[in-house]
Order: sequence, then structure tokens, then C-alpha cells
Amino acid sequence: MKFGGTSVADLERIRHVADLVKGEVDAGHEVAVVVSAMAGETNKLVGWTRTLSPLHDAREYDVVVAAGEQITAGLTAVALGAIGVPARSWLGWQIPIETSAMHGSARIERIEPKLLRERLAQGQVAVIAGFQGIAPDHRISTLGRGGSDTSAVAVAAAIEADRCDIYTDVDGVYTTDPRIVSKAQRLQRVAFEEMLEMASLGAKVLQTRSVEIAMLYRVPVRVLSTFDAAAGGTLLCDEDAIVEKKPVTGIAYSRDEAKITLHRISDQPGIAASIFGPLADAGVNVDMIVQNVSADGKKTDLTFTVSRSELPRALDAIEKARDIIGYRDIISDDNVAKVSIIGIGMRAHPGVAQTMFRTLSEKGINIQVISTSEIKVSVLISEEYVELAVRALHSAYGLDAG
Amino acid sequence: MKFGGTSVADLERIRHVADLVKGEVDAGHEVAVVVSAMAGETNKLVGWTRTLSPLHDAREYDVVVAAGEQITAGLTAVALGAIGVPARSWLGWQIPIETSAMHGSARIERIEPKLLRERLAQGQVAVIAGFQGIAPDHRISTLGRGGSDTSAVAVAAAIEADRCDIYTDVDGVYTTDPRIVSKAQRLQRVAFEEMLEMASLGAKVLQTRSVEIAMLYRVPVRVLSTFDAAAGGTLLCDEDAIVEKKPVTGIAYSRDEAKITLHRISDQPGIAASIFGPLADAGVNVDMIVQNVSADGKKTDLTFTVSRSELPRALDAIEKARDIIGYRDIISDDNVAKVSIIGIGMRAHPGVAQTMFRTLSEKGINIQVISTSEIKVSVLISEEYVELAVRALHSAYGLDAG
Repeated sequence: MKFGGTSVADLERIRHVADLVKGEVDAGHEVAVVVSAMAGETNKLVGWTRTLSPLHDAREYDVVVAAGEQITAGLTAVALGAIGVPARSWLGWQIPIETSAMHGSARIERIEPKLLRERLAQGQVAVIAGFQGIAPDHRISTLGRGGSDTSAVAVAAAIEADRCDIYTDVDGVYTTDPRIVSKAQRLQRVAFEEMLEMASLGAKVLQTRSVEIAMLYRVPVRVLSTFDAAAGGTLLCDEDAIVEKKPVTGIAYSRDEAKITLHRISDQPGIAASIFGPLADAGVNVDMIVQNVSADGKKTDLTFTVSRSELPRALDAIEKARDIIGYRDIISDDNVAKVSIIGIGMRAHPGVAQTMFRTLSEKGINIQVISTSEIKVSVLISEEYVELAVRALHSAYGLDAG
Repeated sequence: MKFGGTSVADLERIRHVADLVKGEVDAGHEVAVVVSAMAGETNKLVGWTRTLSPLHDAREYDVVVAAGEQITAGLTAVALGAIGVPARSWLGWQIPIETSAMHGSARIERIEPKLLRERLAQGQVAVIAGFQGIAPDHRISTLGRGGSDTSAVAVAAAIEADRCDIYTDVDGVYTTDPRIVSKAQRLQRVAFEEMLEMASLGAKVLQTRSVEIAMLYRVPVRVLSTFDAAAGGTLLCDEDAIVEKKPVTGIAYSRDEAKITLHRISDQPGIAASIFGPLADAGVNVDMIVQNVSADGKKTDLTFTVSRSELPRALDAIEKARDIIGYRDIISDDNVAKVSIIGIGMRAHPGVAQTMFRTLSEKGINIQVISTSEIKVSVLISEEYVELAVRALHSAYGLDAG
């Protein structure tokens, strides 16, 4: 059972969490709980660190920020004790949850299940501080924002849990963002692959890395609401466990996009490397790429997208490499957004993409860049059309409720 | 260098602390820093834990409360880094600072100096989270309130520091509480033994246990103000290092006192054991004891004191053992206070106690109980006379300034 920041925001909610845990214990289950920091606490600690030094040591950042989950873990264990449920808190270094050396955004490398399993078997609830581990330097590491989801799924995999329940402030995964489409429906089941695309493409329910781990270790994950657990939630599961495979399961969107176009670059081997090498060196992740067919066989245009916050860094890297790349103009636009359709059924249903293109065309929405994979199609459009596009596609693929 | 809660109360003060540390580093010293939680933080965390469960697991209390010092340690290391001083934070379990198993009020048993010494020799400032250690169960322990003083002196002893500077919100140790006696003077030097008595008898400058460790390992401790470090402070040192030994160095007082009198108990061997055994079993510390001379050789009265907060528990224990003890009446009074005179010079100056008794008598103050040691005399008086008694004694022993 994993509880996010809003689920443990104050003592009253921590008591409610303890009641939910007691429910599972009373039902005869062995329970490991993963908790986030109390809502607002992480932002406060991050703010303090940044105020003292924008270029702070990531190892010290981890020491400061990990205290948030430590506090919640202790308090939750106390709340469980108060209602007669045997429990103890576990910090990352105590289990241990071993991570990579990348402080501030470490990856979990190994979780030792022995101690946890022993205690669970004795009927003791394990309350684990999320988001944290121990790095090879024997110091506290953190997993990056949203990392408690990853902690939960990784612990579930390590102890071979029957299920990992992610309690959050929404009651499941929806066909799209209900704030944009009032007819969005909660999905009963989503395949791991679909959820992975949804998380990567902008749906904020789960951290991408947590879905990767769930998929890799085949951990059945349930997303449900702390405040309305009876609603049922959404089950992340194997593709095989989904009987009715619709062509499109969900519509995702992301406004965190920016587009860069290089005009009149040489149409020759090695040109892509000369552009994307400097970007990689600058730590910029490139998402969609499209290269036009050259009209004269010599010069062409190249367009790619990066996340909006990385645009200044990307432009800087490109301009520094101008002599090597040899472009005429560079044009950037951060007034763009990405809309994606996702569905494992796409494989079996040809013409799915065509429906998307036609729907957008009928609404007069221009598609700037297209990128596809086996189970999704993403298009880059002008940001002002996001809501219109999402609503139109949601209808076009028959996802509207009632 | 140890900094208390008010010295690290906010980011601005943490920056000031970093400046003070930089001053010592620039002067060529190797520096270990021990920090408390930001003022108010510990009370907040303790309050949360108590609210969730008055009878909480002390091990979880430690997990929650130790987070306060962890945050300050990380932030202080960041503040040092920001002004170009190489620094890293150390948590109790990382050094490690090994403690007893008594969670919530553990005693430091051993501090491994190897890692700290190596890093100090490399010019890296060690920023150590005070108040915490690791217990034999491999879990976080805390030392009880004020424990960061103890952490600092114990670390100083372990790394064989030349000096331990305790930075606080007062500029040293005074002849008595300046809030009561405006003519109180700051002491340049105080012998360990004197400071130990002062701390035990109510002076709140240092935690008693920290003075014990300083005395045991002969660590020169300086108490000085974070906000006026130039004032000089007070040096705790060996008795031999104090040339002019006044009969009385300081006047301490404590209002945390309560008196219990048992009337008409048997004047026979074993009676004391029958009283103090049950109290010890109930975890009550008895301080002063006086047994009247029996008038008839058969029945007598016995009076003793406990701390005010322990009075209900003490009365309960006595009443439960009534049949074994066999007293007629039990009378308690929590309207009492203890006033003490302290001085290593007392050993060489006979008649010091007599001055105390005469001075109090002249002011019409009745002495209820007396207790003495080689270097102190304590009397129990009615609480309403505390200020008067302290002022009169301060004058009588020639401690008034100017």
C-alpha cells in the first residue's frame, strides 16, 4: 500500500491511512506500506536547500529532503501502534534499498527482501519511507520527484507481493484528463505497456519509472483513491488479462513541449550526429524528430522537440555548435503541445492513426510533427488547440461515457 | 563548534553559523560542527508523535524527532559549500555514534573517530547531526532533550579536539540567573565539578551529561554566544586551571521540586528500603532526604523530595506500599524550590554553609531540608522566596558586579 503526500498531509489523514492498513491486516494480509512526505513538506525542504545555494551538493539535498519521508514513516508506525496494529518504520538504509550513485535522481538497483519478509511473516506491518535509498557512497539518496511510486512498486517486486495498491487523490486512471473532458471514464484495467506510454506522454497518475518496474517484474498495480477506496480504482495488468482490446484506450497530452527547427542544413550522412551529439552532451532529451525530404538533394530542414524547460539549454548548445552543423536559421516555438492516442488494440486495428488525422483536420488543427510507436500515435499541435483536440479525439474513438 | 536551536532557527542564521565556521577554518583549524534542530522543529515533531499516541513506541519517536537535526545538518553543509568551505553532513548511523538501547533517552557508548578524522585531515568540515545515534538494534536513537550538547562534547572527546565551543543564545555561564539578579556576572572560568553541580541543580546552560563527559575526558569546553561570539564566553576547565578559588562561584535554583513527608513511620532498620524500593521501581528519582531523630525511639518522620512532574507517580507508589511501610499520614507540597550555592573553594573555606543559613534566616526564610556535598549546599525553601533568597545569597558571597 503506497500513500502519496495528500494522503498523509496531516495527522487526521495519517490516522485514516492507519485505518485503511488495519482493514487489510484484519482481512488476513501481510502488509508493507510505503509513504511519501506530508504534502508541502518536500517543497519546503527543496526550497530551503535552493535558497541557501542554487548549486548545492546533491548529496546534501538528499539528506535534507529525505527527512520528509522519514517523519511520515515514523508517524504512520505510531498511528498504527495506537490502533493496535504491530508496525515498524524502515528507512532506505535500514532495509537496505540500494540505489545508483546519482544523488537527487538515483535509480533503485537492489532491494534486500530478507528482513522485510521475516517481519511481515511475524505479522508486523512494514512502514517504509518512500523516495529514498542508500547510494554506494553509504549516504542517503533520493529517487527524484514522484519517486515514492517507484519505491512502492520496487518493494512489491522485491517481496513478491500479490499486489501493489497505489493510494492517491484520484480514484484511478482515466481515458483522459477529466478536467478537460467531462465524459472521461475511469478504466477498470490498463495494460502495463499502455500505462507506460500514458505516463511518459503526460498522464500524471504514476511516475514512469514505477510503471517500467511493474511491467518488468509483472507486479499487478492498483491505482485507487485514499478518500474513496471503495470506488475500485484501476488495475495495471498484463496485456493478456485484458479481454476486450479497444483500438484506443486513452488520450494523453503534454504542454511541456518546445519545437526547434533548423533551416537549410546539409542533407548528408553525419549531420544528425552533429546536431544531437551536442544536445546529449548538454543533457537535453530530444523527443520527436522529423527531417524533410530534400528538394535539391543538398539542403534540407530538421525539426525536433524538447521539454519546454530545456529549450534555453538546447538553443545554447545548438548555437555553440553552429560552425560544425552549418545551418542557416534556427527557429524555436514553445507554443506547442503534444497530444497522443494510446492503445494496445492498435496493433490489431489498422487505420487508427487515420482517424486521428482526419478528426484533427476536420477541426482545422494543423499537425506539425508526428511520431508513432506500436501502441501510440503522438502529434505536435499549436498549444491553443489542446482541449479541442483531446475532446474531439475522445469522441472519435468512442471513449465518451454514457 | 556546537550550535543550538536558536542559532540555526532560520536560513539567515544558518548562513551566520557558516560564517562563524569559515572564520575558524580560515584561522587554520580543523572543524567539526554539531547542530541541533531548527528552533521549534523538535517541539513540533514531538507534538505530532504525542498527538497520534501518548504511549508511542520510543523507537518511532526517535525516527520522527531525529529528522530535525538531519535537516539542519544538510542545510548547514549546503550553506558552507555556498561560501566555498568544503563540508559534508554526518548522521548518527553514518559515523557511527553508538548508543545504549534506551530509545528516547539513550546514552552515547562509543563514537568511531576514524572516518571523521580522515575527512577533517583532508580539510573537510564535518557537520554532525546532534542528539542522535544508532542503537544496538540498528535503529536511530536520540539522547533526550538538550542531547546535542552531549553529542558535541562526546565527538570532541572522540576526535581528541583541542576545544569544544558550545554556541548558544547566552554569552556564557553566570554567577546566577541574570533574569533574577541584575548584578549577576559572567564567569571567565568554571571548574568541571562546579558546572556539573550547577547543571544538575537547575542552571540550564548545558545538559548535565555533556558536563560529565567533558569532565571525564578533560575536554576544554567554551560556552559562548552565537550572536556575540567576540564577548568571550566562559571556559569549563580543570580545577587546577583556576587560580583564584572563591568559596562560592555560583547560585543555582530549581522550581521543579516537590516535597513528601511520611509521619509516624517505624524507626527501625529496613524502613528506608521499604520506602525507596517502591519509588525506584516506579522510576521516581529521589533527591534530598531527611529523617528526623526519633523522640521515643519508635516512631519518626521522613521527608524527601522528587521532581514536581513525578509527584503523582511518587504518591501513588507510596500509597500502594502503605501496608509494608506502615506510616500514619502522607503530606505532599509542590510549593517548594531548591536554592544551591556551588564552589570548589568551599573545601578550603570552612563556614561557607553557615553564611548561607544566616543570610536566609535574616530574610525570614525557613529552611525545610538541607543537603550538602563537598562543593555545594542546597536548601529547600518555600517557592515564593526563591528570588529573594538568590539575590541575598548572591550579595552575601560577594558575587554582585560593580
